[in-house]
Parts: sequence; C-alpha cells; structure tokens
Amino acid sequence: MFTVAPATRIDARAARTPAQDQIAVALLGLGQVGSAVARLALESCPGMQLPVRITGALVRDLHRPRPTGNRVPLTAAGDELLDGAPDVVVEVLGGLEPARTLVLRALGRGIPVVTANKSLLAVHGDELFTAAAETRTPLRYEAAVLAGVPFLGTFTRRPLAASLASLCGVVNGTTNFILTEMSAGRAYPDALAEAQRRGFAEPDPSNDVLGVDAAQKLAVLLRHFAHCSVKPEQIETTGIGGLCARDLDQAAVLGGALKPIIAADWTGHDLSAFAGPAFVAASHSLARIDGVQNAIVLGGAPGGDLLFAGPGAGPVATAATILDDVVEATEQPKPQKTVEAHRTRGAVPAAPLTGWFIRLTGNTLPVAPDVADLLSARGVWLRRVSDDDGRDGRATRWLVAHPCDRGRIEAALAAVRTAAACDAHWIRALEERA
Amino acid sequence: MFTVAPATRIDARAARTPAQDQIAVALLGLGQVGSAVARLALESCPGMQLPVRITGALVRDLHRPRPTGNRVPLTAAGDELLDGAPDVVVEVLGGLEPARTLVLRALGRGIPVVTANKSLLAVHGDELFTAAAETRTPLRYEAAVLAGVPFLGTFTRRPLAASLASLCGVVNGTTNFILTEMSAGRAYPDALAEAQRRGFAEPDPSNDVLGVDAAQKLAVLLRHFAHCSVKPEQIETTGIGGLCARDLDQAAVLGGALKPIIAADWTGHDLSAFAGPAFVAASHSLARIDGVQNAIVLGGAPGGDLLFAGPGAGPVATAATILDDVVEATEQPKPQKTVEAHRTRGAVPAAPLTGWFIRLTGNTLPVAPDVADLLSARGVWLRRVSDDDGRDGRATRWLVAHPCDRGRIEAALAAVRTAAACDAHWIRALEERA
Repeated sequence: MFTVAPATRIDARAARTPAQDQIAVALLGLGQVGSAVARLALESCPGMQLPVRITGALVRDLHRPRPTGNRVPLTAAGDELLDGAPDVVVEVLGGLEPARTLVLRALGRGIPVVTANKSLLAVHGDELFTAAAETRTPLRYEAAVLAGVPFLGTFTRRPLAASLASLCGVVNGTTNFILTEMSAGRAYPDALAEAQRRGFAEPDPSNDVLGVDAAQKLAVLLRHFAHCSVKPEQIETTGIGGLCARDLDQAAVLGGALKPIIAADWTGHDLSAFAGPAFVAASHSLARIDGVQNAIVLGGAPGGDLLFAGPGAGPVATAATILDDVVEATEQPKPQKTVEAHRTRGAVPAAPLTGWFIRLTGNTLPVAPDVADLLSARGVWLRRVSDDDGRDGRATRWLVAHPCDRGRIEAALAAVRTAAACDAHWIRALEERA
Repeated sequence: MFTVAPATRIDARAARTPAQDQIAVALLGLGQVGSAVARLALESCPGMQLPVRITGALVRDLHRPRPTGNRVPLTAAGDELLDGAPDVVVEVLGGLEPARTLVLRALGRGIPVVTANKSLLAVHGDELFTAAAETRTPLRYEAAVLAGVPFLGTFTRRPLAASLASLCGVVNGTTNFILTEMSAGRAYPDALAEAQRRGFAEPDPSNDVLGVDAAQKLAVLLRHFAHCSVKPEQIETTGIGGLCARDLDQAAVLGGALKPIIAADWTGHDLSAFAGPAFVAASHSLARIDGVQNAIVLGGAPGGDLLFAGPGAGPVATAATILDDVVEATEQPKPQKTVEAHRTRGAVPAAPLTGWFIRLTGNTLPVAPDVADLLSARGVWLRRVSDDDGRDGRATRWLVAHPCDRGRIEAALAAVRTAAACDAHWIRALEERA
C-alpha cells in the first residue's frame, strides 16, 4: 500500500534551474512505464525544445532498487509531489486508487495531468473531467488507447473531423497476439504462455482475455468521440476463452479472420457497442491487423473512414506518447470550460445489429440446407457455411449469418440445439467494409 | 487572369458581428474546394464552437454564377480581401501565382494562412515558411497530403512522435484508382477515362499520371518530417504510363500488387526518396490501399510503424480539413520563431536501394535459370520469377529482384537485353514490412 508517511521533501520550484526552461514533472508510479518515462526524460529527448525534469516519483517501496538509480528522487507520499508544484503530473500507477485521489488533487490545484490509465478514465471519467473543467486544467490521455499512435488529441482540436458516427478497432494487443498465434495453429494455452513469455500478457491475464481492458478503452473512446459517459460493465463484453484454433482455421476458410474487436455506433442518437472477438471479412481494414498491432477505424468522417494503426502498448512507445502529452499540456492554452464536460451525456449502449459467426458441434449434425432452413424459419439468414468437419469423432460446422439482433440469433440457435441435439457457440461478425 | 481591378470594398472588421465571436475568413479561390469551404461555413458546421464567416472570395470572373449565390461577396482583387484584415486567409486557388504573392502578403501582415496547395508548398516552401517564421504567423496545410486524414499537425506538437526516420505511402488517389481498375483487368485508357468520368482525374491528367503531384506531396512531407527542403523535380519520379494490365495481373501472381508509391528514408543523415509505381508485397500495409484511398506509413516511431489511411481528396473532405485548420490557426498560440525554419536543410535525395519488378518481352526469351544467371553475374538476385507468358505471340516474363542500387539493375538489364534480344521495363519493389 501507499503510505502518507515521511519522505524527502520535494519542492519543484526550489529545485528548478535558474533558467526555468525545463518542464518539471512529478511521476506518480515508477513501474515499467514510469521507469521508461524517467529514462526518456533523463536522456533529454532529441528533438524536444524544452527538457523535462522529473521532480520525483511516487513509489510503494522506497528501498527497492530502481533502473533510474538515484537520479529520480523517490517518495511514498503523493501529496509531497503535488506540494512541490510541478508543471505537470504524470500518472502511471495504474488501477483506481490512489490514482483517482491524486489526479483529482492535482486538477483541483490547476496542475495539468497526463495519464495512460484507461481503468481510471473508464471508471471515474465523469468526476475527473468535471474536475478538469472546473479548474480549466488539461487532462491528457493520448496513451490510454493505441498507446503508440497519436490520434486522440488531434480530434479535440478539429471539430469537423471529430463529427463521427461510429468506430471499430483492435485495441488489445495481448488478445490480438494470442488470436494471431492461434490462427497459425497454436492452442490457446500455448499462445497465452507465449504472450506471457514475451511480456505481452500479465501473469494474471484476466483483464485482457476476458475483454475488460478492451471495454474500458471503448468507454474512453466513447467519451472522446461520442460524448457519452458509459460504464464499461454496461458494454456487452466477451472474452476470447471460448475460441479454439479450429475456429480460426475455419474463419479463414469462410473468407475472414477472428479479431478482438471493439465497435460502436452512435448514428442518430442511439448508442450501440460491444467488445469481444468477432469474425471480420478479409476485405475489412481490421482483418490484417496482426500480432500486437492495434488499429482504430473511425466512421462518418466527411470523406470516408479513417484508419489509424500502430503499436498499442509497450513501455517505450507509451512513455514517448506520455512525454509528448506533457509538452502539449504545457503549451496548450487554458482550455475553455471544457466542451466535453457540458456535452457529455450518460448512456447505456444497446447490443448492436451485427452478423454472427457460429460453431455447431454434435455427434451428428443435420445437412447444411436443413440447418439453413431451421435458422431462416426464425429470421436468421446464412451468408456462408463451412463443410462438415468430423475431427475428434464429433461433427462440427461453422456458419456466418447476416446481421440480426442478439435476441433473434439466440432464439434461433436455441431451436437448432433442440432440433439437432448439438452445441452452438457464437460470436459477432462484422460487415465487410471498404 | 486575376486582375487588380475594382470590386466591392470588403472590410471584415466593419462587417463583423457585434459579438465578434466569429472567425472572419477570406477565401482565395472559389473553385470546387473553395465552394465546398464556403458551403460548409454557411451551414455553420455542427460541433464548431466558433462559427466561420466568409468575408469574401477572390475569383477570376465576377460574373460567373456560383453555387454560393450572393451569400459570398466576390472580388477580383486579392489585396482588397487582405485589407479587410480577416482572421484567417484560406488559399484554395491552386497553382503558383497569384497564390504565392497573396500568401506572402498575408503572412507579412501576420494573418494566419491555411492552404491545401501542395504545388505552392513544394515549390515555394522555403520562402513561405521563412515568412511565417519572421512574423510568427501560423501557416497550416493539413489538407495538402491525405486531404481527409488529420495527421500532419499532430506531429508538429509532439516532438517524440515526430522523431521519425522513414516514410512510404500512397498519396495520389487518381493513379491508385487507375491501377486498382487495371488490376481488375481494365486497360489503362479505359481506367483513366473512368477516373475522369467520376471526377477523380482532371481533363488533363498529366500531373497525376506523370507522378508530379506525388513528388510535390513527398516534398511537403520531407519538409514536415525530415526537415529537408527538397525540390520536387530532384526526386526520382516515374509515371504510371508504362504499365499494362498484365503487369498488375502478374504482380498478383508474384505475391503482391502495383501501387503508386512515394517513399523516403533519412536514417542517419542521408536522404533517399522516389515517387512512382512500385511492386509491394501482399503483406505490406500499403498493398490493400485501393481505389481513391490514400495512406502513409511512418517509420522509426518509438514503438514501431504508424499507419494513417483514409480519403486523399474530394471537395468535402478537403473543405472540412481546411476549416478545422482555420479553427486551429485561430486557437493556436503564436508559434515560437518556428523550429522548422531553423532546422530545415536543403537536400538532394539519392536514389534509394529497393527491390525491382521487371518485365522482359521478346520473340523468345531464355529459360528462367539462364535469366537468373545473367542477372546474378551482375550482382542482381531474383526473389521470384513468373512463368513464361506467350500471349500476343511474344514471350513475356516478370521477375522480382532483391534490393540493389539503380545503377546495378540498369547495367544488369542492359546485359540481358543484349544477350537475349528482348525489351526490359522495370519499376521499384518495396521490401515486405509488417
């Protein structure tokens, strides 16, 4: 736990160089990303006009050796860092507390905050953005989604480009890596172990594989682009645990790929959204986003869809994005009592209308035309059907259905299960898109 | 021609509303893009805090009917518009003069300028950016490259993200559309006619099909990202006229596609660059950029390559980008005596080291191993070879060679031509890229 215990007194103003031509940054957290921020700042990043100086870092354990050695003063008391009146606070603690309390305090004192913490923004966004608006203090979070790709801030300054109506994306590198490995024939446990070995997955990978991380990032994006405050747990969220390597094989046979998708649409006023693995046609721009790559497609822009892709995580990419945010936060004019805080409305996203990717498994299965008849009688129309696959002594068949609502697919598949004595597993399928 | 002739006197200050809460914009040009800017401004764009008011438009012909009717005051005298002291000047005349003179005058008076004119920036960039730096006046050009995709301005504010080392892209929608049509089997003249019919190509398509437009955009990008001032005519530039539909077929057979590419590398200090059609492997992020879509891949970013893709042209997309630039130009703090003007150095790009896509045609051709021997004796190594194609009564074979410099491929192919009495046509080929 963090303590409010004693520590070296840190005063950024006192420590500032005579020239005052440095940005004094207080670091909340000195884990992987925090250390990368400190190292990059200590290297006095090439190309930066204004060097960044780390006034100190909030850590849990003052005595643990750090890669930054004694070049970054440590403290276990976050308030001490704020009392030093840094130019910017960088929050890289992760999790909700004490991040929330300290960020609120910084904003309350008018100290700009840069964070990469999507959990914090997704869960406490209303409170944080209101606090930022009250004191007209920048709160920047470019690294919270697609950590290595600058695109969020761009749209806050460009009202016409920001008049969007939908988005979809691959925003979790861990699950994208796992599904990419599985599409090369690896079993799920092997692919997960490989992701952990390479540092792409945490020892406890739950947040990634259950879709929590993706849903939180979607909530951040919905506030940013749709001006909706959405609780991440109200977004339909599916993990990748139910998929097997054969699903990925068959997705390719059926002309697409399975990707960990987030998608939302707010055309008109109604918001729909989901986070979970989905079939995407090979022609879809997200079909080729492989490995730890991330991407966002923004729909409804004046001339057509926009695609932004690149590294979604990694300490160095994240740290560089955070430091660029620091530069922007200090150069940016005082925001007008922010637009978003006023325009943002609470919303519970509906389940969207999408296609479906379905796996039927049983001792025997009806022939494909009979399955199609069973489904079409309940208003579900098939787009593609794979050949029957008799491996493992059980019959398995994969189907791609045209868009319909979730209630209808559930009812139709319940009927198939009863009639054909088989299991049905289904995930969403995205329409083809140029 | 434009005249300095009489016209209605236009004074933005006098015409301004009491509340002064509008951005007064003088439009230089009222063609396709200018009209779209005016229409979008008259619609008082949704989502914009500050409405834009068009103080007047510079036109050649005062008497031609305009889609904006009498809602936009017309003048044939650019100086009158500047005398009205607008908040921002939008230059959408195209071409070099009088655009250059008027933009210089606006900057000289400290009036921010927004332009989409890549010819102007490519040819007169040194002069224009120096003038902007002298008076610390914004000169914005987000719509000059990838007109519908906001990405250029993002990097001017983010020094670490902007520490790049290379770029490649598809930045000309006209030729990308033509090559995409040709890859579906259409002959070049048909594909060009279709592009003209749809408004993607000018009646005189030379600038696009000869690669001039792409080379100019590359010059703009090199100033922006590599801080190099490059004359577009010093960039190796190839048109698409030498390609036939069978080249596009065979590119697919050889595992890739032909795309109108720009590419540059400034790793270390040496700059290399080219603009022209090139073979790209199917795994390359640009291989799937089809039709009028445009894309840029930026290399050397902290966490890996960044991809930005979307509409590259079109009056509505361009107009929206221009108006967003207008908003940014008025909100942006006075630039520091701009970084770029100081850091920019003149450079003549070298011819890059790339692979090659080669077509050999003759009455008879040596067998593939003999061609490979002829080339490898001169240091050119083949990666892939297509089957002999005997259509049209002539033998044709396509080859993809590993990277080597241009002098070497030229010498090697000269030797093949002599030895085998055949014609050789070659374009560049890009290495595969994740």
